[in-house]
Amino acid sequence: MPSCMKYFSPLSFLGLRFFWNSFNLLTAIMSATPYLSDFFEFLRFPSISTDPEYAPQVAACAGWLEEKFQRIGLEARVHPTEGHPIVVARSERKPNRRTLLIYGHYDVQPVDPLDQWATPPFEPTLKDGLVFARGATDNKGQILAHILGVEKTLKETGDLPVNVIFLVEGEEESGSESLGRFLDGHREELACDLIAISDTGMVARGVPALTYGLRGILAMEVKLSGAEGDLHSGIYGGVAPNPATLLARLLACLHDDCFRVAVPGFYDAVVEIQDWERAEWARLGLDDAFFQRTIRSRALLGEKGYTPVERAWGRPTAEVNGIGGGYQGAGGKTVIPHEAFAKLTFRLVPNQAPAAIQAAVCDHLKRICPPQVRMEILPGHGGEPFLCDPHSKDALAARRALLRTWGVEPALIREGGSIPILHTLRGTLGAEILLLGLALPDSACHAPNENFPLENLEMGIRLNQVLLEELACAH
Amino acid sequence: MPSCMKYFSPLSFLGLRFFWNSFNLLTAIMSATPYLSDFFEFLRFPSISTDPEYAPQVAACAGWLEEKFQRIGLEARVHPTEGHPIVVARSERKPNRRTLLIYGHYDVQPVDPLDQWATPPFEPTLKDGLVFARGATDNKGQILAHILGVEKTLKETGDLPVNVIFLVEGEEESGSESLGRFLDGHREELACDLIAISDTGMVARGVPALTYGLRGILAMEVKLSGAEGDLHSGIYGGVAPNPATLLARLLACLHDDCFRVAVPGFYDAVVEIQDWERAEWARLGLDDAFFQRTIRSRALLGEKGYTPVERAWGRPTAEVNGIGGGYQGAGGKTVIPHEAFAKLTFRLVPNQAPAAIQAAVCDHLKRICPPQVRMEILPGHGGEPFLCDPHSKDALAARRALLRTWGVEPALIREGGSIPILHTLRGTLGAEILLLGLALPDSACHAPNENFPLENLEMGIRLNQVLLEELACAH
Repeated sequence: MPSCMKYFSPLSFLGLRFFWNSFNLLTAIMSATPYLSDFFEFLRFPSISTDPEYAPQVAACAGWLEEKFQRIGLEARVHPTEGHPIVVARSERKPNRRTLLIYGHYDVQPVDPLDQWATPPFEPTLKDGLVFARGATDNKGQILAHILGVEKTLKETGDLPVNVIFLVEGEEESGSESLGRFLDGHREELACDLIAISDTGMVARGVPALTYGLRGILAMEVKLSGAEGDLHSGIYGGVAPNPATLLARLLACLHDDCFRVAVPGFYDAVVEIQDWERAEWARLGLDDAFFQRTIRSRALLGEKGYTPVERAWGRPTAEVNGIGGGYQGAGGKTVIPHEAFAKLTFRLVPNQAPAAIQAAVCDHLKRICPPQVRMEILPGHGGEPFLCDPHSKDALAARRALLRTWGVEPALIREGGSIPILHTLRGTLGAEILLLGLALPDSACHAPNENFPLENLEMGIRLNQVLLEELACAH
Repeated sequence: MPSCMKYFSPLSFLGLRFFWNSFNLLTAIMSATPYLSDFFEFLRFPSISTDPEYAPQVAACAGWLEEKFQRIGLEARVHPTEGHPIVVARSERKPNRRTLLIYGHYDVQPVDPLDQWATPPFEPTLKDGLVFARGATDNKGQILAHILGVEKTLKETGDLPVNVIFLVEGEEESGSESLGRFLDGHREELACDLIAISDTGMVARGVPALTYGLRGILAMEVKLSGAEGDLHSGIYGGVAPNPATLLARLLACLHDDCFRVAVPGFYDAVVEIQDWERAEWARLGLDDAFFQRTIRSRALLGEKGYTPVERAWGRPTAEVNGIGGGYQGAGGKTVIPHEAFAKLTFRLVPNQAPAAIQAAVCDHLKRICPPQVRMEILPGHGGEPFLCDPHSKDALAARRALLRTWGVEPALIREGGSIPILHTLRGTLGAEILLLGLALPDSACHAPNENFPLENLEMGIRLNQVLLEELACAH
């Protein structure tokens, strides 16, 4: 348990933490059980948006959501797009009430490496209070908590304190391309005072957070080609260019020896982490030991001169997400591969612009790529970094809702992940965004054995209920 | 057509090359046709020795060979080993005759990337005088030529000028591990005066060669592991070690900027290329343009200070045969891979010893591997470089046989590939080795669309017949 938990938990000083946790867990399982069938049904759709093969299952998942919204009394509709469908649902629009738009996504990441899943990724499995499935945390569990919260309030009171619009898309994991166009075409329908999103994290179990910043992202794939086909490495070794070798040399130039990104101009627009942020983050106790335990690694590695949490939340990166080329099977094969590829993402911080970084990276790669191979750069999706004011009236209302739900002051954090659509949402709808995440550090988002605690589903339902109350009287 | 062809072809000066080639091709197809069914049957076995899944097909291929040998009147037997079976066949041993052992292998390389084959790799296809199939050149076509040569001589004369032993193994492409033990246990049975092997190349179509040197090989796989599972590159990017990034940095240290291998001590035992070799190789016209055309690459790349043919035949290398880690599918996936691997081979020249090079490479990798990841080095097979005297009595007999077959003086060459068992064969049986290859530079050995000209099958049959004659009276 991280030290931040000690800091926040009001009961830890009394040595009652064990009972408190057991009680919470029991309560969660008992009270969330009625929603389990909804959750499991939602999770069974392999709604992988990055792989075109899964398009029918993505569409089926959108259809399920539409029906769910209609069953709880909202007006709902699936909107086809050029990509995957967008589901919009709304409560009856009452005048003189503020309108909250709740954004989420029903698409999920691919599942490989499949052999590392303890249970099938699309057969949700409840174990020790955790639901294991691809998408359990990112984002099905979190968006479902809001849907179930609205359902509960409607059942309990027959009304909602604010007008609510749900906007649930199916392309978040592949760049949200359709959503931008959709927002443009539905400004009036989606007009709102505020946007709430639960697609970020808590600091730890029982320690809620308001996330006021996110990193941006820039994705690309680099492919090097040499000869037209694979060659015998005995006959042509020493003569033919080896794209795998040359790709390695190219990637070795992404960082310098201090693990700063070595692309010229990369840091030009970077806003340094502020002193109050360093102090706020330092007290959370997310130290080396915490990260090592969470990721189960013998050591950490990153830019010199920053703590792990500073590197994760406030510093940009260059990562190789996938590398491949040549023989991949068992044993060996003495070939010179004819091509090799690397899938790259760069995480960006304020005020790095994806387009400027893309240009800088392309320039860098072109400058250092040896002329003996052909380089192809396939541009991927981009998303700007995000920052908002954690001290605004609505942010204060959200912090009260978090406090009422967990009985603990929420931490003010930034996060390392990216939600590329935040800028478009804010820009198009002209509303500020509250990020109230329910993910835990060990939820294994994007990785095998992704999971979501039932406790967080229950707390998320509660959070939705009190958030609507707090926002109704925030101004 | 390379300029070496002009140098050697006696008819090129008369402008009759087209007719000569057409005539050769027609003759070849017509006279080889009776053997086509044997060749195609042999090629249909997917006898891939590196992948344990194919063990039954490898065994079936050995059985087919045994039957073929018996049908032509040799005494033949399949010997099971701990790996794949070894087939031995022999003519009746007559006294006062020299004994020639002909070595070959019936196993083949894996076939991936399968999608780059124009025809199925195990469905032999005849097109424009070329037989396309995995193993067509390496080594089924070449060993079959010897078998068919012996068959033809026996049919024509009822006898052979020398005693013949065939030794055909099934692990050449995976290190020939069983053959070493087998030779030890069958010294008497395999006792011979000389060994002939056709598993090397011709300089070009119609230009035969005696290969007096081969590079050695050392294979290994390097695997780096970071966290225990793949991680979200947003949440942990900048914090977690990325094995793909670090592997790239490791591989970038395999070569220096002149593309010399940067492993300390790597060149300590290297014997420089001799002046007469430089001169002999230079006149073959295997220049940059020839290699570029052959491998269909925009440029060549290798160690500075040497011509392409010198780099391929007389200089050692480090090659990445395969690299992998993280997401390999369509689109992107924002993960930090938990591991990454590279399959490496080093080609060695006289007097580099595989064990010494393995120790040097392991030391180098251990020295430069960052402590944040776990490195595992899986040792692969090794084979010493080979060199013999191209001016010995038997080598001169072989050169006469090559001249009689093609009507062209054979070139004296070394080759870049490796036949790791040569040293064991020579050491255990105490006999010198003649390398009389039938492969062409564009045979695509180890690559998609491997092929063997029917013309070479026919010429190989003829070569076997005259070789036996020449060797019978060489001393």
